[in-house]
Amino acid sequence: MSKWVYSFGGRETEGGAEMRNLLGGKGANLAEMASLDLPVPAGFTITTEVCTHFYETQKSYPADLEKQVEKALEKVELAVQARFGDKEFPLLVSVRSGARVSMPGMMDTVLNLGLNDQTVRALAKNSENDRFAYDSYRRFIQMYSNVVLGLDHHDLEDIIDTHKRREGVTEDTDMDAAAWKKVIVDFKALVKKQTGEDFPEDPKEQLWGAIGAVFKSWDTQRAKVYRQLHNIPEKWGTAVNVQAMVFGNMGSDCATGVAFTRDPSTGENVFYGEYLVNAQGEDVVAGIRTPQSLTIRGKEKEGSSLPAMEEVMPVVFKQLKEVRAKLEKHYKDMQDIEFTVQDNKLYMLQTRTGKRTGAAALKIAVDMVNEGLISKEDAVLRVDPESLNQLLHPSLDPKAPQDVIAKGLPASPGSASGRIVFTADEAERLSGEYSVILVRQETSPEDIHGMHAADGILTSRGGMTSHAAVVARGMGRPCVAGAGTVIIDAKAQTLKVGNLTLHEGDMLTIDGTTGKVINGQVPTIAAALSTDFETLMGWSDTFRKMGVRTNADTAADCETAINFGAEGVGLCRTEHMFFDGDRIQRVREMIFADDAQKRKKALNFIKPMQRDDFFHIFKAMEGLPVTIRLLDPPLHEFLPHDEAQMVEFAATAEIALETVKTRLAQLHESNPMLGHRGCRLGITYPEIYDMQVEAILEAALDIKSKGKAVLPEIMVPLVSTRAELSILKKRIEAVAKKVFDERKDKVEYMIGTMIELPRAALTADQIAEEAQFFSFGTNDLTQTTLGISRDDAGSFLPLYTAQGIYERDPFASIDVEGVGQLIEIACEKGRSIRADMKLGICGEHGGDPDSIAFCAEQGLSYVSCSPFRVPIARLAAAQAAIRLNKKAQAKKKAA
Amino acid sequence: MSKWVYSFGGRETEGGAEMRNLLGGKGANLAEMASLDLPVPAGFTITTEVCTHFYETQKSYPADLEKQVEKALEKVELAVQARFGDKEFPLLVSVRSGARVSMPGMMDTVLNLGLNDQTVRALAKNSENDRFAYDSYRRFIQMYSNVVLGLDHHDLEDIIDTHKRREGVTEDTDMDAAAWKKVIVDFKALVKKQTGEDFPEDPKEQLWGAIGAVFKSWDTQRAKVYRQLHNIPEKWGTAVNVQAMVFGNMGSDCATGVAFTRDPSTGENVFYGEYLVNAQGEDVVAGIRTPQSLTIRGKEKEGSSLPAMEEVMPVVFKQLKEVRAKLEKHYKDMQDIEFTVQDNKLYMLQTRTGKRTGAAALKIAVDMVNEGLISKEDAVLRVDPESLNQLLHPSLDPKAPQDVIAKGLPASPGSASGRIVFTADEAERLSGEYSVILVRQETSPEDIHGMHAADGILTSRGGMTSHAAVVARGMGRPCVAGAGTVIIDAKAQTLKVGNLTLHEGDMLTIDGTTGKVINGQVPTIAAALSTDFETLMGWSDTFRKMGVRTNADTAADCETAINFGAEGVGLCRTEHMFFDGDRIQRVREMIFADDAQKRKKALNFIKPMQRDDFFHIFKAMEGLPVTIRLLDPPLHEFLPHDEAQMVEFAATAEIALETVKTRLAQLHESNPMLGHRGCRLGITYPEIYDMQVEAILEAALDIKSKGKAVLPEIMVPLVSTRAELSILKKRIEAVAKKVFDERKDKVEYMIGTMIELPRAALTADQIAEEAQFFSFGTNDLTQTTLGISRDDAGSFLPLYTAQGIYERDPFASIDVEGVGQLIEIACEKGRSIRADMKLGICGEHGGDPDSIAFCAEQGLSYVSCSPFRVPIARLAAAQAAIRLNKKAQAKKKAA
Repeated sequence: MSKWVYSFGGRETEGGAEMRNLLGGKGANLAEMASLDLPVPAGFTITTEVCTHFYETQKSYPADLEKQVEKALEKVELAVQARFGDKEFPLLVSVRSGARVSMPGMMDTVLNLGLNDQTVRALAKNSENDRFAYDSYRRFIQMYSNVVLGLDHHDLEDIIDTHKRREGVTEDTDMDAAAWKKVIVDFKALVKKQTGEDFPEDPKEQLWGAIGAVFKSWDTQRAKVYRQLHNIPEKWGTAVNVQAMVFGNMGSDCATGVAFTRDPSTGENVFYGEYLVNAQGEDVVAGIRTPQSLTIRGKEKEGSSLPAMEEVMPVVFKQLKEVRAKLEKHYKDMQDIEFTVQDNKLYMLQTRTGKRTGAAALKIAVDMVNEGLISKEDAVLRVDPESLNQLLHPSLDPKAPQDVIAKGLPASPGSASGRIVFTADEAERLSGEYSVILVRQETSPEDIHGMHAADGILTSRGGMTSHAAVVARGMGRPCVAGAGTVIIDAKAQTLKVGNLTLHEGDMLTIDGTTGKVINGQVPTIAAALSTDFETLMGWSDTFRKMGVRTNADTAADCETAINFGAEGVGLCRTEHMFFDGDRIQRVREMIFADDAQKRKKALNFIKPMQRDDFFHIFKAMEGLPVTIRLLDPPLHEFLPHDEAQMVEFAATAEIALETVKTRLAQLHESNPMLGHRGCRLGITYPEIYDMQVEAILEAALDIKSKGKAVLPEIMVPLVSTRAELSILKKRIEAVAKKVFDERKDKVEYMIGTMIELPRAALTADQIAEEAQFFSFGTNDLTQTTLGISRDDAGSFLPLYTAQGIYERDPFASIDVEGVGQLIEIACEKGRSIRADMKLGICGEHGGDPDSIAFCAEQGLSYVSCSPFRVPIARLAAAQAAIRLNKKAQAKKKAA
Repeated sequence: MSKWVYSFGGRETEGGAEMRNLLGGKGANLAEMASLDLPVPAGFTITTEVCTHFYETQKSYPADLEKQVEKALEKVELAVQARFGDKEFPLLVSVRSGARVSMPGMMDTVLNLGLNDQTVRALAKNSENDRFAYDSYRRFIQMYSNVVLGLDHHDLEDIIDTHKRREGVTEDTDMDAAAWKKVIVDFKALVKKQTGEDFPEDPKEQLWGAIGAVFKSWDTQRAKVYRQLHNIPEKWGTAVNVQAMVFGNMGSDCATGVAFTRDPSTGENVFYGEYLVNAQGEDVVAGIRTPQSLTIRGKEKEGSSLPAMEEVMPVVFKQLKEVRAKLEKHYKDMQDIEFTVQDNKLYMLQTRTGKRTGAAALKIAVDMVNEGLISKEDAVLRVDPESLNQLLHPSLDPKAPQDVIAKGLPASPGSASGRIVFTADEAERLSGEYSVILVRQETSPEDIHGMHAADGILTSRGGMTSHAAVVARGMGRPCVAGAGTVIIDAKAQTLKVGNLTLHEGDMLTIDGTTGKVINGQVPTIAAALSTDFETLMGWSDTFRKMGVRTNADTAADCETAINFGAEGVGLCRTEHMFFDGDRIQRVREMIFADDAQKRKKALNFIKPMQRDDFFHIFKAMEGLPVTIRLLDPPLHEFLPHDEAQMVEFAATAEIALETVKTRLAQLHESNPMLGHRGCRLGITYPEIYDMQVEAILEAALDIKSKGKAVLPEIMVPLVSTRAELSILKKRIEAVAKKVFDERKDKVEYMIGTMIELPRAALTADQIAEEAQFFSFGTNDLTQTTLGISRDDAGSFLPLYTAQGIYERDPFASIDVEGVGQLIEIACEKGRSIRADMKLGICGEHGGDPDSIAFCAEQGLSYVSCSPFRVPIARLAAAQAAIRLNKKAQAKKKAA
């Protein structure tokens, strides 16, 4: 018999942190905290396997689930000395989702479950607080009706608003028990009207409804979008946590709060959090009331006038600090915790690894090594490579004038300028055209697509742990939250600060590192990297086995990349050099040439410029290897595209316009991606590659003549057969001999090829007979292996990833099963001929951490990526090496 | 020490027919004939391995070759009692190429080698014929200068023409010894002028020059083109045959001829050949003099007035008939022989398997089985599947009026109508636009590309064994040769017969089966197949293991294919049905629909028509399986392409023209081949596939309701992941359930997929979990695996096959190393999940014999090809099965 249910917090705790996959993150950590003797209200977790079963069996439960839930429920009842539906001591529970990884705000929750017309009276009696009891009851009905019964959130809010008007009050807190009772009557009437059924009075029925709703909420559109954005597989599923209620809103000796064991923005080793007296946890997270700081230090730093918990509840605060210490020591990582204080007693409701900014991740990792908590390997593994992005991107130029119009919380670091939009849909729609700042009173999960599309986010309400702040940090989007002086009217589409009114489309700048909101656009400067960054990068370099090169076509790119630690150029695209200045005219003349002679003439014009390009790249790279790809794109990419350009070209080149048009028509291709390009150009117009090889080797000799080192690697693109490379290699060697003879000097150089067609991968053993190195061109390899044109994929690929047909966009992260299989075949076959074959990757996947991990598994020599991603690649390569090493050791141990 | 040289025909013969790969076809068969005690002039063969060595070592010879040649030469001298350069009895030799397979007219030959100013006198004295000696000498110098020294053929001819004018004669035969002596002086002067060297007098020097020229001629452009057209690998190389000269031109008791042991046009078991008295062999083959028939029967049949050899040289003819019988019995196949008669003595110069028409191949194969010469397996292996093409294509309608303007020899059967062109280049240039008839006085190897491009060939000179006739038969091109009344003026671009003058572009018809030349176009009728065809097809069907299906989109195609023996439809492309009549308007409306509802409305219009299409196809196929591919091409293929169509569509559909244009722009794709097509349409617009599945199953139920059998196989195109097929399969099954419920009846059907993307092949095990069958779409699989767009390959693929980068056009014959590897992977992975997986191929490769052989090796269930290729596929599949069986038995024996 399968075990579907795990108890915690009562007499026995069955789970633990290591069971995250089965119990979800929340459930596993509740069990872990209970095992650490922290005060966790009793409860139980229904496993993620039930969720999987649920979706595999047309939404039905395992046969023995009900019995197991019954038993677990009995244990909870025993632990808290209360029973479901009991008229004196009724058990109330929360029902929450809990997936393997935290998905904040994405899953639905039901609180106060177990209340009905009978038990609410017991709650009132026991708490000696009628208002609290009926407020709790209406909250339960409201949540349950919305989440489980599917009623519209607004319809329920409307009822409350009607009653508030009737009562003559504006705040929920001003509603008394009698008023809430009337609301409850209307809520129930609405339920009856819309569902045709009475609101369930039976707590067991309530419980099963809520459990089902949690499982169903795994499949909602917004949950799917979140998983897509965070690469969470559909099949993982969620667990359900049922836990005895504790109340932070039962009076002034009650409170609720969230905290981070260190500062999640900076990483500073200070206790950091927010709380609200007499409130339920949702109030803090939802950002509806502006919360107060946990510590005096925090309060002062934020310039808040509201008292800190340290001042208001010193005893409980001390207890909480001890919990903090215990948790950090136990988990050896920064924790994000939720707690409730009921009647001055502390209850822990959640702990999880805290989300943090890239800078914080770095600082925490480095600090914890220095504190002796973790090893350097662990530190390297702790930092999400993608989070470095935040540090590597420009921030506001401090010297530039700033028209600061407001200040909010520095919710997610980095800065952004863009046009104001007021809805997530608009943000998504316009983000393709220009930078946008999404401006909202507060955000909700429905806004996620817009937050992802926006360059920055500004909210007027909510704290550092509000939805907007947490999600923005996760995404690495700059965010200023809770800028209270900003008045946002989404309907009127205006943002007002004092006398200033801004409209949709107006330019706005936010600085998520300082919380400043600035009118207009502000110039930016390059990121200044902390010493923590250098420290961690240094550790990374000692662990990683793969080299990290850069894709760079200019000396400037090379210099940026060198500063970021690049160890060579993995891909220098020569075609970009053909567009500069008046070269394009000559390139066009070359294409229009009738014969090799005329082609040569045009090429002779271009050669000295191309040589100069290579000279400066070689110089910048200071003797590091530089892989230069010979001309790759189809010739018509260089041709005039509109009538005006045609006329101009025809006139300059002294060719009849008709001839130009005819040639253009000849060069048109149905599928240029699969057309006359790459080495096919080299075979059919050998003069072009001859010129490029001359330019490369002459530039290399020029460098050498200055006493400098130089290491050119000539790369032939789009090879599909050994014969192609064999023919071109002979030609390259002949040109090299000619150049060396003329110059009476020589340089070392290599000849290799891209592996970017399935046939090349499949026949890599043959190709390796000719090639000194392989570089996987995973962009084209993905296009051909999957049969998907990247340029045309927009019409179906988003739906494909949404439906899980591809787990991730295969152009962002290597499709391991398909493209990866070809890479594996090619590596194996290549090495069967040349054991020490130099193997690299130069597609855009070279900067993607998952793809880098795959490359490490394949034992590639290096990855190559854009200059700004070089540090990310260095870190990702180190992580991959550490993980592979761990795996190997585990295997060794097992054997 | 390697053996590079093999002697034959003297005291010992070292080779034999089984050594064809080493000695080439000619050399191996000369040795074989010598072993059979047939009169073969002594000689020796330098092996093809020397040729390979030559090209692998920058055109140098093995170190010990010279010594081996010397020794072999000594044996020849001993056999014929003459010595190189001897002043009394000089040895004269021919030097000829000889590759593994016959390459008629492609390789260069030098005759009379050994002649110089001294030895020519001995030849004159010994032959008592001055004119003969100096004619032979000038022929030698002329050939040698052209072939070995590289002088222009025309420059040499000019010298002869000048002297003819001076002598006042028009024919070569009218030139006497003195005149030839003058020509020789001028030839030598030209050699000195153009090469700076004297013409070589030393026979050894001459010999090595000629040997080198033969090897070099392997690499000429025309040899390459021939190999390309006939799929002969570049690496095979040629042998060199050096053989003592015999002379057919030493007087009236001398002759030369070529013969086939059976009629190569009809296959009839009659001796068939041509000869010329007092001529050298080249005179017959080159078609310069119209040759005479060998037999009285042949003479009468051709209506010739010239005497037959049977009459003129009865003794030698009888001897030749005995040779014929001996060779057929020995080789068990029809032979193509060359002979020379010198002083009434017969010499055999060549035997080889005779080229024949498709009809002749069939008849000879079936006859030889009946004669007990060969087995049925051998008979099946004897017929080139491609040659059936000739029998399967239409011939002239005998009832149609024919304006016969001339009659020539029925050189290659079949008929063709087309526009007149006078040069091979024009034929090639215009053949893409319309049918062309290449009209030439006589053809030469330089014309091969034009002959290939032309639909038919007409020559005014030359016999049944002329270049034009032999090459046309090999290519399966209809050809009328030697139509002497036709006067062709290539310069003036006219063809005159009597008073009629035709110009380039005029319509002409030739009937290669009867030799008729007809003015204008003549309607054609379907081929009438002989009983031999049925017999051989019957044998084939007993041997083959693979099924043969057809690619057919209409009931008419299905009926044709059934008549040709198709066992099902392997590919029914539904998109073709979307263009008919007013459907295209609805299809366009569907594409322009904003939502699924509007799309469904348009689809509802199309459905009954589509159902009707399927109904008739099912009916025609009489219960055989029918694989229907759901919609595959990108939607924009259906859209209006020009302004007029746009305006019309917009008006009919009541959509603004601007909207039409915008939508067209949206649907434009950079690389439609890799775009939004195939199952991607099914995923994004499920209504389309729903409609098609409904139409298929409703049609199937309609058939069933008539008490007939039906077997639909629904095929999903362009699948790259299991998930795609899984989603669509569920949808198809749901639609099927709906249809079956509505109709209260059901039919058996299958759901499978195309394997046409590398990723699908690589993950075939996963896909096999969902697919009941695979069909390899090798067109698209070739495009993606090789990264070559078929539509765009014209700009480089011809050069690629010319340079041997691909041995054959990969779209004509499967690229075994690349695409084949993926097919192998997919078969293996597919079968690992479903051991009895139905595997087929429906790309155009399904009709290519080499590709069929590959499919047989992979154990595919069936191949599918166009209706007219079904018999070819049946035969090719039988051959493949027999060969595989033989291989297996040989392996068994070896073990």
